[in-house]
Amino acid sequence: MNFELTDDQIAFAETAKQFSDQALAPFAAEWDREHTFPTDTFRQAGELGFCGLYSPEEAGGLGLSRLDSSIIFEQLAMGCTTTTAMLTIHNMATWMIATWGTEDAKAQWCDDLIAGQKLASYCLTEPGSGSDAASLKSNAKLDGEHYILNGSKVFISGAGSTDVLVVMARTGGAGASGVSAFVVPADADGVGYGKPEEKMGWNAQPTRMVTFDNVKLPKSALLDQEGNGFKLAMQGLDGGRINIATCSIGTAQQALNTAREYMHERQQFGKPLAAFQALQFKLADMNTELVAARQLVRLAASKVDLKHPDRATYCAMAKRFATDVGFKVCNEALQIHGGYGYIKEYPLERYVRDVRVHQILEGTNEIMRVIIARRLLSDAAEIL
Amino acid sequence: MNFELTDDQIAFAETAKQFSDQALAPFAAEWDREHTFPTDTFRQAGELGFCGLYSPEEAGGLGLSRLDSSIIFEQLAMGCTTTTAMLTIHNMATWMIATWGTEDAKAQWCDDLIAGQKLASYCLTEPGSGSDAASLKSNAKLDGEHYILNGSKVFISGAGSTDVLVVMARTGGAGASGVSAFVVPADADGVGYGKPEEKMGWNAQPTRMVTFDNVKLPKSALLDQEGNGFKLAMQGLDGGRINIATCSIGTAQQALNTAREYMHERQQFGKPLAAFQALQFKLADMNTELVAARQLVRLAASKVDLKHPDRATYCAMAKRFATDVGFKVCNEALQIHGGYGYIKEYPLERYVRDVRVHQILEGTNEIMRVIIARRLLSDAAEIL
Amino acid sequence: MNFELTDDQIAFAETAKQFSDQALAPFAAEWDREHTFPTDTFRQAGELGFCGLYSPEEAGGLGLSRLDSSIIFEQLAMGCTTTTAMLTIHNMATWMIATWGTEDAKAQWCDDLIAGQKLASYCLTEPGSGSDAASLKSNAKLDGEHYILNGSKVFISGAGSTDVLVVMARTGGAGASGVSAFVVPADADGVGYGKPEEKMGWNAQPTRMVTFDNVKLPKSALLDQEGNGFKLAMQGLDGGRINIATCSIGTAQQALNTAREYMHERQQFGKPLAAFQALQFKLADMNTELVAARQLVRLAASKVDLKHPDRATYCAMAKRFATDVGFKVCNEALQIHGGYGYIKEYPLERYVRDVRVHQILEGTNEIMRVIIARRLLSDAAEIL
Amino acid sequence: MNFELTDDQIAFAETAKQFSDQALAPFAAEWDREHTFPTDTFRQAGELGFCGLYSPEEAGGLGLSRLDSSIIFEQLAMGCTTTTAMLTIHNMATWMIATWGTEDAKAQWCDDLIAGQKLASYCLTEPGSGSDAASLKSNAKLDGEHYILNGSKVFISGAGSTDVLVVMARTGGAGASGVSAFVVPADADGVGYGKPEEKMGWNAQPTRMVTFDNVKLPKSALLDQEGNGFKLAMQGLDGGRINIATCSIGTAQQALNTAREYMHERQQFGKPLAAFQALQFKLADMNTELVAARQLVRLAASKVDLKHPDRATYCAMAKRFATDVGFKVCNEALQIHGGYGYIKEYPLERYVRDVRVHQILEGTNEIMRVIIARRLLSDAAEIL
Repeated sequence: MNFELTDDQIAFAETAKQFSDQALAPFAAEWDREHTFPTDTFRQAGELGFCGLYSPEEAGGLGLSRLDSSIIFEQLAMGCTTTTAMLTIHNMATWMIATWGTEDAKAQWCDDLIAGQKLASYCLTEPGSGSDAASLKSNAKLDGEHYILNGSKVFISGAGSTDVLVVMARTGGAGASGVSAFVVPADADGVGYGKPEEKMGWNAQPTRMVTFDNVKLPKSALLDQEGNGFKLAMQGLDGGRINIATCSIGTAQQALNTAREYMHERQQFGKPLAAFQALQFKLADMNTELVAARQLVRLAASKVDLKHPDRATYCAMAKRFATDVGFKVCNEALQIHGGYGYIKEYPLERYVRDVRVHQILEGTNEIMRVIIARRLLSDAAEIL
Repeated sequence: MNFELTDDQIAFAETAKQFSDQALAPFAAEWDREHTFPTDTFRQAGELGFCGLYSPEEAGGLGLSRLDSSIIFEQLAMGCTTTTAMLTIHNMATWMIATWGTEDAKAQWCDDLIAGQKLASYCLTEPGSGSDAASLKSNAKLDGEHYILNGSKVFISGAGSTDVLVVMARTGGAGASGVSAFVVPADADGVGYGKPEEKMGWNAQPTRMVTFDNVKLPKSALLDQEGNGFKLAMQGLDGGRINIATCSIGTAQQALNTAREYMHERQQFGKPLAAFQALQFKLADMNTELVAARQLVRLAASKVDLKHPDRATYCAMAKRFATDVGFKVCNEALQIHGGYGYIKEYPLERYVRDVRVHQILEGTNEIMRVIIARRLLSDAAEIL
Repeated sequence: MNFELTDDQIAFAETAKQFSDQALAPFAAEWDREHTFPTDTFRQAGELGFCGLYSPEEAGGLGLSRLDSSIIFEQLAMGCTTTTAMLTIHNMATWMIATWGTEDAKAQWCDDLIAGQKLASYCLTEPGSGSDAASLKSNAKLDGEHYILNGSKVFISGAGSTDVLVVMARTGGAGASGVSAFVVPADADGVGYGKPEEKMGWNAQPTRMVTFDNVKLPKSALLDQEGNGFKLAMQGLDGGRINIATCSIGTAQQALNTAREYMHERQQFGKPLAAFQALQFKLADMNTELVAARQLVRLAASKVDLKHPDRATYCAMAKRFATDVGFKVCNEALQIHGGYGYIKEYPLERYVRDVRVHQILEGTNEIMRVIIARRLLSDAAEIL
Repeated sequence: MNFELTDDQIAFAETAKQFSDQALAPFAAEWDREHTFPTDTFRQAGELGFCGLYSPEEAGGLGLSRLDSSIIFEQLAMGCTTTTAMLTIHNMATWMIATWGTEDAKAQWCDDLIAGQKLASYCLTEPGSGSDAASLKSNAKLDGEHYILNGSKVFISGAGSTDVLVVMARTGGAGASGVSAFVVPADADGVGYGKPEEKMGWNAQPTRMVTFDNVKLPKSALLDQEGNGFKLAMQGLDGGRINIATCSIGTAQQALNTAREYMHERQQFGKPLAAFQALQFKLADMNTELVAARQLVRLAASKVDLKHPDRATYCAMAKRFATDVGFKVCNEALQIHGGYGYIKEYPLERYVRDVRVHQILEGTNEIMRVIIARRLLSDAAEIL
């Protein structure tokens, strides 16, 4: 048991911090305001390996552990929550293709995805199936040498601006075991896109509905085998949940740093805010919970790396806790800034708007509790 | 002791509800999106008496109690948080002019303000004095028959779109006792306006910096007498805090109603959300705290009506509690909506953005605690 | 709408305060330590009318409203939580007999119960039916002119030291509609008592199991009519929940007062605790939530007085909120006392132990949420 | 970075678990009820090395890391909170003697202390100095070859039943730098003991006032050098805080396990409690926060092992968070048990009473926040 970062991890973090400071932080407010999807920035991230952090080396990825990846994503999220979150989704979808794709699929996509030249979206949620993902209705019917894909997906991050979609669709009967996963070119015939959703935050990435109208896919578009799609989607989400939790941690750390500096600068009643005990205590609690959350996220990442049988439960705990703490810390940092926290000249309100969705997506925090409780109550004997 | 609304109060509430449903709710999303300040709507509100609810009858107001006013504002806030909040600020400033204005000032402003033909802003906060309001630096120097006003104010609601400003400025020495209050025409020579602040919410009203560069005011612009300005400002804020607390309550009730309906409609895992016990409990807690908060707001309003010596403490308790509960309820209602709570097609994210500032303005909730604690610790013998 | 106490209510409160200060507070620690059931004290309480506060005047009670009763009980609870809680249970059971008892039953019991010469227990909970009270299995079979009562009850407050038991037992089929309520002399043949439960708190009253082994009851022991027992039990509990919530409020107020004084006395780092902002804020929040809770309790009491159709929901909200706030306030007051809060020389740890059970009994706070949610989701249209 | 226990750590934990199950758990309720200080049990613990876990090997200790020690204490605390807490205090005091004692002192005490044949108490707090420990007034005046110790200490765990006292006393001027630490035989002339404090919990160990009336100590009783005593006391407390935090974690895990089992057994409304979603969610949150707390405790222990410059801050964060989570988890577990949680037949109420003091002693959680905030605000640049 050892809680210190390795030299490699420190080096990764420093590289990421530099990129975050130079390529993300200075633009994040503008991207939010203008609803810009910074395609070039993703390419630059790709050059540094950030687009295939945990994709296997044989597919061109860095083959890093989830723990290493979390350390890197945390630094990136300090610069721009939304862009980093999109990057983590891209990493997740890319990893799925690089891990379970056919040779054809890998040959077609992996180089570009890992280089950040092309981007990937993850398509699971449907209008009628959010928390109950396994009830999805999109379907892919085998017709000779092709699958014919029909259905629709909602809340797809990056949709309309990405190049490839990892789509979960039904090839068999009801329930999780009837679902398969496919790689679908974003511009394939029959793929349609809705208008960008107007959102509270996450404005630096478009979120759209995606519709599939008799989209013809070669057999090689299937990931792994038929009926395994839901399992793959959930394995992707284990990592995805660590990633989103990490984005909350990084943003919250940035918010806390900002609040800390503000407390030194801002004077009220003849002394800096830093001199007021109630604010000191608030800051102490923000930091304490943030450190606890970071540890829990790293623990979960480590469990995924070890393929621990309870890794899904650890990921659920980390996602629930870290996204709740992340929101709370950002929201308290806003409060410390008073009126200045509420205006866009300062970044606090953006942090709050951006991390808010982390409590909802990749499984709401309510679904996380369902996952955790199911495990806890399935076997009373063992301690997590 | 009697907790039931009177027939008059029920009638007021119904009128307000009707206006809220017809003139506010259908437009609130658009006003937020387009950053519209709905001047005509304020005029319509004025026709119903909503612009001078508690201004004295001799000045043309309805002369209602603060409790009656709170009942009315709550209904209005259910339709549009931001517009109602602006309306409450207008009521506060109007009441100050109608109560402490010179005959000249009353003659010049009251009819139009109470009719909603003209609107008023309240100017207390300065760049360097937020929570520590009594340290304000704007000053008004008597020069013959006129005061010459200099200084600047920030975070002024409505500024640039209102017609008259109630301005607190220093006429004497340091501290609260050196402050006086003035009525300043919004278009007087030397009054300047900053750009509208880009804010997290409250977009249906502009918030601007206001600067005073040798603004010449007649002696009749003084409210009450010199040195009383801070006291008047605080008396205004007692009511202002009840009002803002009320805006949180109304919005939260609307959010809760929306969540309740959604729980009946939205199906997951083969049953409506309403069938899931964890969500039921969440809803129960939202409602319980909301009812408690409403009672506390009404209690505080009643204490102002009775000129109870501890009314400022009650107002501080009501503001602290109701704005915190309001934010929490709106935020939980968003969560119940999952992804749909995060997009602007639904009103939840707007509710959250709008009520967030209530925890900050008219005295941050930290300052409320300072006020409450000071009273509690000043005299150990009595129970509030 | 009027939030001020009437002159009568002020007079009631003062009488109760005097009794509380003189007859309860000086002995509470000893009663806790020695597990004393202060029978004489109940008699003294009876002399002041505190044993039949809301029992009808025709039965000898004071016929006060629930709101008046709550005002009185709050003062009493400031002196001794447990004794007051027992007194409220006695009031509830006495009210049931005085309201729905046969003439025989009333003649036999009311005078003594209302005088505090005899005491009553309320027997609903069974080993297998706590939250699911309607599934109770005790049964009373009509055999000629008598009912034969069998079964067992648990967690019966006062059992073994009281004189009469109000017992809910099944006379018909399954579910709530098969339950009837009976008046059972505590010393009737076949009534047995378990050992006193060793409890965390509430030591000034015994809690025992009660068993009924072919207890023979005259027909006149039936309250109201057969099948109405569960309804009566729940009506009793509406008031019971207000009462218990009130006991939490009174105790919490006492804890807050104690903490407030301690903050003035105790010096650390060269100044009184009262000078530390973080403790000031804590005290402010304790007081704010306590005032909100008191208002909610009084609102609920008023709803019972008005026989409002939603009175059960209001009682559930009041009980949930006030007992949670009560525990929190007492627990924070303990914390303010540091090590002195943890030892029995100070009353804080007793307050915490005593109010803890209020979150559990007369319907756990989880069951309160079930009640509230059921109402909220039954009819989406109306606001509570 | 590696979150898995080593084989050694697993072996330590298993040994501790066995001892906990056999020598602690079966007796904990009785020790609480009878206020028994189980001297023999400490001897048995000593035989297994539990009395000198992190005392240096050259002094006869196991020389384990704080992390290893925490893993062991956690298992022990699952069996008996209070006894384990006493054991951790003994370990802390023993470590101080073994680390900074003179050769004479080590020769006199270490073997017996590490064997558990004798026990040690830690004497810092005084009647007037709790949180402000550095203001202590006990003093030791050098008089020839001896120190003459006078003063009094309060809330001393084990006092009256232990054999040696580590006493902080003033040898120099005001403030921390005037304090020295001494080893004092518990039965030295002039050492007096107050009555055992009656406490809310921690009944399996006596807590007494200790008075020193011209107690004559040889020079060899001084730990390290004059003026270093406060520093040593604080270094002791860094570990002490990890230990107490660990006792909260272990107890909370036991409470959670108990609640989990109860949820399977207890039936209400025709199904086990485990089937109710609101309780499932409660259990999930208990577990999540507990896992986060455990990680934070282990992180802090690791920082002490590494002599990290911020170790005191990490210990403060761990103590604050883990003792708060520990109380919350135990209290929720009590609630899940309903009425059965409140009676002594079940262990829940004892867990709550025992862990409550962890939020207070070895530095209140308020003082923890002071420590954390001071560090956060001293240097804005670095992230903890």
